[in-house]
Amino acid sequence: MIETPSLVDQYCHGVLRTELGLGTFEAQLGRGEGPPAAGTTFFDTQTGFAVRRWCPPLLGLEPHCDPARYLARRRELGVLEAGRRLLRGSGITTYLVDTGLPGDLSGPPEMAAAGNAEAHEIIRLELLAEQVADTSGSVASFLANLAESVHAAAAHAVAFTSVAGVRDGLALAPEPPGPGEVRGAAGRWLAGRRAGGTLTDQVLLRHLLWIAVASGRPLQLHAGLAEPGLRVDRSDPALLTDFVRATAGLGNDLVLLHGYPYHRHTAHLAAVFPHVYADLGAALVRTGARAATVLAEILELAPFGKLLFSSGAHALPELHVVGARLFREALSRVLGGWVADGAWSLADAQRVAGLIAAGNARRVYGVG
Amino acid sequence: MIETPSLVDQYCHGVLRTELGLGTFEAQLGRGEGPPAAGTTFFDTQTGFAVRRWCPPLLGLEPHCDPARYLARRRELGVLEAGRRLLRGSGITTYLVDTGLPGDLSGPPEMAAAGNAEAHEIIRLELLAEQVADTSGSVASFLANLAESVHAAAAHAVAFTSVAGVRDGLALAPEPPGPGEVRGAAGRWLAGRRAGGTLTDQVLLRHLLWIAVASGRPLQLHAGLAEPGLRVDRSDPALLTDFVRATAGLGNDLVLLHGYPYHRHTAHLAAVFPHVYADLGAALVRTGARAATVLAEILELAPFGKLLFSSGAHALPELHVVGARLFREALSRVLGGWVADGAWSLADAQRVAGLIAAGNARRVYGVG
Amino acid sequence: MIETPSLVDQYCHGVLRTELGLGTFEAQLGRGEGPPAAGTTFFDTQTGFAVRRWCPPLLGLEPHCDPARYLARRRELGVLEAGRRLLRGSGITTYLVDTGLPGDLSGPPEMAAAGNAEAHEIIRLELLAEQVADTSGSVASFLANLAESVHAAAAHAVAFTSVAGVRDGLALAPEPPGPGEVRGAAGRWLAGRRAGGTLTDQVLLRHLLWIAVASGRPLQLHAGLAEPGLRVDRSDPALLTDFVRATAGLGNDLVLLHGYPYHRHTAHLAAVFPHVYADLGAALVRTGARAATVLAEILELAPFGKLLFSSGAHALPELHVVGARLFREALSRVLGGWVADGAWSLADAQRVAGLIAAGNARRVYGVG
Repeated sequence: MIETPSLVDQYCHGVLRTELGLGTFEAQLGRGEGPPAAGTTFFDTQTGFAVRRWCPPLLGLEPHCDPARYLARRRELGVLEAGRRLLRGSGITTYLVDTGLPGDLSGPPEMAAAGNAEAHEIIRLELLAEQVADTSGSVASFLANLAESVHAAAAHAVAFTSVAGVRDGLALAPEPPGPGEVRGAAGRWLAGRRAGGTLTDQVLLRHLLWIAVASGRPLQLHAGLAEPGLRVDRSDPALLTDFVRATAGLGNDLVLLHGYPYHRHTAHLAAVFPHVYADLGAALVRTGARAATVLAEILELAPFGKLLFSSGAHALPELHVVGARLFREALSRVLGGWVADGAWSLADAQRVAGLIAAGNARRVYGVG
Repeated sequence: MIETPSLVDQYCHGVLRTELGLGTFEAQLGRGEGPPAAGTTFFDTQTGFAVRRWCPPLLGLEPHCDPARYLARRRELGVLEAGRRLLRGSGITTYLVDTGLPGDLSGPPEMAAAGNAEAHEIIRLELLAEQVADTSGSVASFLANLAESVHAAAAHAVAFTSVAGVRDGLALAPEPPGPGEVRGAAGRWLAGRRAGGTLTDQVLLRHLLWIAVASGRPLQLHAGLAEPGLRVDRSDPALLTDFVRATAGLGNDLVLLHGYPYHRHTAHLAAVFPHVYADLGAALVRTGARAATVLAEILELAPFGKLLFSSGAHALPELHVVGARLFREALSRVLGGWVADGAWSLADAQRVAGLIAAGNARRVYGVG
Repeated sequence: MIETPSLVDQYCHGVLRTELGLGTFEAQLGRGEGPPAAGTTFFDTQTGFAVRRWCPPLLGLEPHCDPARYLARRRELGVLEAGRRLLRGSGITTYLVDTGLPGDLSGPPEMAAAGNAEAHEIIRLELLAEQVADTSGSVASFLANLAESVHAAAAHAVAFTSVAGVRDGLALAPEPPGPGEVRGAAGRWLAGRRAGGTLTDQVLLRHLLWIAVASGRPLQLHAGLAEPGLRVDRSDPALLTDFVRATAGLGNDLVLLHGYPYHRHTAHLAAVFPHVYADLGAALVRTGARAATVLAEILELAPFGKLLFSSGAHALPELHVVGARLFREALSRVLGGWVADGAWSLADAQRVAGLIAAGNARRVYGVG
C-alpha cells in the first residue's frame, strides 16, 4: 500500500457559493457545447459515476446512491457545510487556486478555511490584462500598467496561468513580439474594446506570456481536452515545442496542464526540457474508472521529479474530492503493481509517490 | 457477470453468397494494399486468431484449430448452412446493413433469415448518387432526382452512411456548398463520367452530406483506420469538428464509425456535441485480444448514452461472430472489473451494458 | 510461460570503451535538451529504474541497489569485464549494430566477442555520404562514388539506416529527386561544406534513400520519439505513408524503428504494406515498467510476422540488458495472458514469440 499523506493540488478553482438544484449540478459534470442529448444524462459519464462513488459517504450516504437523493442530502446540509465535509474529506492539504474564472466562486482564503488547508493564488494572465485595460487611459499607460501588474502579482501569487494556447491552437509563434507590434496590437484592441471585453489577440497574449516568463514565477499553460468552441487536435502540447525551446534556460518553469489525450506528448516535453513539468489533474476527473491507466501512460516518459498532482476541479467541491481520491487510488494501484512485480522497490515507490503528490509542487512553487 | 441479452449491430455489411477457398478467405482477414508478405499470412493477426478462437466451435470443431481444417468443415457444411450457424451463434438480434459495397453479398432480408434476427438497411450516399447519375439526363434532373432519392430512401432506410471524409481527408469545408457551386460540380462530374463511375468530387460529397442531414435520419461517417490508398492521420475524427459544429442543433444525429486509433477523439466529440454518437465495431475486430482495452479507452470520455455496438463485419459471417463475441467479452470484462473494484455499482454496470449493446441504438434508429 | 531462447537484436549501437563516472552514466539515461532539472535526476525515470532492477544482479549486487554502489562495483570490475557480464546476461544471441554514431563505441566484432554472440553491421546512410564527400573531388565523382559505396556496403552490411525523416519531419517528398536536382543539391552541399560536415540537405537525403532502396537490403527508418532539437508530432510514421507507397513492390523491405508514441501508426503501416516491418525496441527501454502495455499496443494491428525485437541500446551495455529483459518479460506476460484467457492457444503463442524474438529478423535480414 503506497501512502500519500500530503496532497498539494497544484491547479484548481474555487467552489460555487450558492445552493444547486439537480440540473445545475448535472451541468457541471459535462463539458460540452450543449445540454445532454435527449434520453441521456451527464450523470452517465465517468465523472458522474466517480462523484457517486466517492462523495455520498462523505455526506453520510451509501456510495452510488441516486443523484436526486445525493442532491437532497446536500441541500439538507447546506452548501457551506456540504462543502466543508467534502473538501476536508478530499485529503488535499494545499490548494493552488486559479482565480480567473467568472462565477460566484470561493477564493483562496475561503478554500483554506473550508478545507482546513493552505491555499495560494494563481493569477490568470488574460483576466489581469483585461482588468488593466479597464483602468488604463492610453496604449502607453496600458502597457506600462500591464508590466507593473504582472510584476506586482508575482510578489504574492504562486504562479501564472494562461489559456492563450488552447484558445487559438497551441502553435504560437515562439519568439516574443517586438515593441512596435505590441503597441499596434494594444492600440487596436483597446480602441475596439468595451469594458470587460476579453483578450484574444495573439500578439498581446504572446506578449503577456513573455512578461510572465520574465517574472520568474512558474507559468501554467493549458493543453489538451479543448474547451467548447475549439478543436482537440489544435490543443496538442507538441505544438508548444518551439515556444518551450525559446524559453529554455531563462530560469522560469513551465507547467503543462491537463494534456489528455496527448498526455504522452506532455510527458515527452517534461523529459526533454529541464524547465517543463507535467500535470494530469483534469484528465483523471474526466476518465474516472480509467484514471490508473491514464496516470500510468504519463508515467511512461515523465521523469518522476517532473509530474505534479492536481484536481483541476471547478465549481463543485465534489470534483476536488474526485480528483484527489482518483489520484490517490490510481497512484497506489499503479506503483503498488510495479512493486508487486518486482519492477520497482517499495522504498522507491513510496518516495516517488511523495514527490508526485506534494514534493515536486513544494519545490517548484515554494509552498506547503 | 455482465449480461447483454440483445445486440443491435448498428453497422455491418452482408456476407458472401459463394463458397470460399483458403486464399480467398484469408484475403478477407487483411486490409492491406497487397498480399501478405512472403513468409507471412493474414491468419497471423489479431483478427485471424479471433476467428480461430470463436468460430470453430460453432461449426463443431475445437477452438484454434488449423485454418485448413476449419475451411474444409465450412465447405462440408456449405456456405448457407455455415452462415446460418455462425450468424445464429453471434448473439446479434438486429442487423443494420450497409448495402453500398460491391460484391455478391447478402442483403438485409437474407441476413434476417439466416441470422433469425431483424435487419434494416443503411444507404450509402455515394452509391445512391452514382445510381441517380446513371439514370439522369441533365444536371438539373440529376440534382432534383438526387434530392428526391435521398428523401425517398429516408422513408425506409434506418440511416445514411458516407465515406466522403476518409476518402480525401476528413477536413471537409464545414458549410453546405452554394447552389451554383453544386451545379458546376455536377456538370463537370456528369460530363466526364461513364456509367458506373464513382463519385469523388468534394463539392458533391458535401452537398450529399447536407441533403442527408436535412433528411432527419442519422448520418454515419467513417473515420479512423484509413482504407487502402489513404493516410491514417488524415482520418482523425477531430478533423470533422467544424462540420460537426455546423450541423449541431439541426435535429439530425451523427454517428462516427470505427475511429481507432483516434477513438479517444471520437469519444471527445460524443461528449461535447449532443448530436454526436460513437461506434467502435471495426476496431474490436481488428484488435482481437486487445478489444477490452480499446473498449475501455473509448469509455474514458464517451457518455454512456452515446456509445453504440457494431461489428463492422463484411463478407464473412465469421466477422459478425468475432465482432459480437469480442464486444460482449470485452464489455463484461471492463465493466465487471470496475464493479469488482467498487468504482461502479453492479446495477449501473448492467444498465450501461444494455445501453451500449442495444438500448442506445434502439433510441437513435428507432429499431428493435 | 512463453520462452524465447534466441534474441536477434535487430537495431542497436556499440558500447562505450571507457570507464564511466556517475554523472556520465546518468547522462546516458536521459534524452533531453539539457541536464536534469535542479532537484531531479535521470535515475528517477523508467529507464533508470529498469537499469537498477535488471543490472545489479548481473554484477553480483541486489536489484534496485543505490546508483553509486552500482557504479562503484562496475568500476571495480572494469569496463571490459562489466560489459562482458552484462551483454552475456542479456540473452541476446545476434546483434545488428548501427555503426554510424560518433563516440568511442565498440564495433560489431567486439560486440560479438564480448557478448558471445553473432554481430553484423548496419550502415548509416548519412555517415556514408559524409565519408564519400570527404574523399571526392567533384560533384560527378561524389555522386558516382556514393552509388558505388552504397552498392559495396550492401554486399557486407545487413541493412541500411537513416535519420533523414526525423531530422526535418517525416513528410518527405515521396518520389526520387531527378538527376539535375541531385547534381544541383550536391554542388551546393559540397561547395559549402568543410571536411566532416553533416548531411542535412533533403534532396540528397531522399536520393540516398532511393539508392538504398535499389540496393535490395532492408532500409531502417527512424520515427517517433524525436531526438533533441525536433518536434515529436513531426516524427509520426504516418507522415511516411506516401514514401512507403512509392517504394512498394520494388523488392526492398522498410523497417520502421521506435515509433512510440505513434507505434499504433507503425503497426498500421506494417499491416497495410507487404514490405513494411515494425520495431519497438527503444520504446520499451524508455517506458520500463510499462513495456508490456506498449508492446500490447503495437500487437493490436501489427501482423505477427511483421514485428521485430530490438534493444535500440546505445553506449551502455546496461541498455542492451534492459531492452532484452523488458522485451522478454513483456512478451511472456502479454502472450501468456492471452493464453490464460483462452484468446490464443499456447502453441500459437510460442510460435509468435519465436517469430518476434528472432524468426522474423532471420527471414528479413538473412542472419542468425
